[in-house]
Amino acid sequence: MAGQKGKKMSALEKYHRRVDAVRSLLCVGLDSAFDHLPETFLHHEYPLFAFNRWIIEQTHEYASAFKPNMAFYEARGDRGISSLRMTMEYLRLNHPDILTICDGKRGDVASTSAAYATAVFDTFGFDAVTLNPYLGREALEPFLTRTDRGCIILCRTSNPGAGEFQDLPVDGKPLWQIVAQKVAEDWNAAGNCMLVVGATYPAELQQVRARVGEMTILVPGIGTQGGAVEQVVRAGLNGSGAGLIINASRSIIFADNPCETARQLRDQINQYR
Amino acid sequence: MAGQKGKKMSALEKYHRRVDAVRSLLCVGLDSAFDHLPETFLHHEYPLFAFNRWIIEQTHEYASAFKPNMAFYEARGDRGISSLRMTMEYLRLNHPDILTICDGKRGDVASTSAAYATAVFDTFGFDAVTLNPYLGREALEPFLTRTDRGCIILCRTSNPGAGEFQDLPVDGKPLWQIVAQKVAEDWNAAGNCMLVVGATYPAELQQVRARVGEMTILVPGIGTQGGAVEQVVRAGLNGSGAGLIINASRSIIFADNPCETARQLRDQINQYR
Repeated sequence: MAGQKGKKMSALEKYHRRVDAVRSLLCVGLDSAFDHLPETFLHHEYPLFAFNRWIIEQTHEYASAFKPNMAFYEARGDRGISSLRMTMEYLRLNHPDILTICDGKRGDVASTSAAYATAVFDTFGFDAVTLNPYLGREALEPFLTRTDRGCIILCRTSNPGAGEFQDLPVDGKPLWQIVAQKVAEDWNAAGNCMLVVGATYPAELQQVRARVGEMTILVPGIGTQGGAVEQVVRAGLNGSGAGLIINASRSIIFADNPCETARQLRDQINQYR
Repeated sequence: MAGQKGKKMSALEKYHRRVDAVRSLLCVGLDSAFDHLPETFLHHEYPLFAFNRWIIEQTHEYASAFKPNMAFYEARGDRGISSLRMTMEYLRLNHPDILTICDGKRGDVASTSAAYATAVFDTFGFDAVTLNPYLGREALEPFLTRTDRGCIILCRTSNPGAGEFQDLPVDGKPLWQIVAQKVAEDWNAAGNCMLVVGATYPAELQQVRARVGEMTILVPGIGTQGGAVEQVVRAGLNGSGAGLIINASRSIIFADNPCETARQLRDQINQYR
């Protein structure tokens, strides 16, 4: 069991310190799809880990967070999950000051959420996790009560069809606004909540920012999914010129030069801060 | 990669045949929490698998489906996932006529959903999977287009706080009704969709049944969570006296006598059909 020794710095505090230390709001998404790995990693015993270790070394200087996406490890079965375990061990040993986010969109009844919280925070040792709000606060309590960890709740997702339910009007407001409001005013009692708002919806991002004060927002969808950096930064910064975790996955990790691509994106983000 | 040879019987067809063959609507939930395993399994190299194999042999005669809950395997890390893989291999070899459901409540943007679909259907070889609707149909297409597999979409969940979002009024209807309607009328083009409605909400179950015709509904929450068998069966049966997958997890697998408990529940369900 990792990451449980004594009183820990909170996930958010760890993130804020890192942001200041390397002047970066960039999160590198480890969406390490086996079918897209460069040839050189395919014959390693643990290809996803070998690739991740290389990406981490290429990009860590410009990253304030790393976000492994569970789907790509599960797709490779138990050996894929071994690669995830090894990636987390590598990050803890070599880059303990960089926030780690489990992108799993988890959420189930409370007894099952308790097992997911154990998996994510204790077994794998993540600092934070993405969560789906559909089952309500009560179901997510086993995550929310882990006050040293980060709970990042889906609000307005980055996909083209996100509005099918998220835009449905409830008392004249879209559902995503209700989610933002509940998380900000009720779920965040321990100060460990964040929200997910896709980079592909800067207008909604601006409205979320107007409603949630200084809360940190994870913004996926920059790059391959089409989100534009300037719009996202201008729409999403909080009063301290921060409060964003801006994620790029495929556009960095499968770039010809991940190091240079990460540096450029970090700098491009800072241009608008 | 398992379960991909030639033209397969669909997941729903497999389930219906099994229901007729063993006269059972019972699904045994493999919520195999390490901390609750009987002492005798703890020192096995793969405790969750050893326990599951025993539970499967105790209960298969009365079961039309087995539903491993991903959280409890992930909580044990890569070795837990190995136990899941071995459980699925065991079921395919020994009980290929019993439906297998991955209880993962998955759902992400389409490129990630594609990786989850690979994980669930190909890598582990499940027949069906539980899915969260919050990101909309477009995000779940990689599951929905797998026409031989089952897509079981959360509608009204069994937890006490389920109503926080699911009961919110949209055009005068609770959100869960909108989900039921969209799945029945739009998402189910390939005839491979089902819904999740908790046993703890029989009134809602009856209303869902009234709206979705013959569609099969997965009903968790019998037993430990408090759902009552008679109410559930009377509220949920379709016109053919079937169309339900009634799941019990902890109340069977951690019973003193899982075999007898499963038999009794199967018979109790049949009493009201």
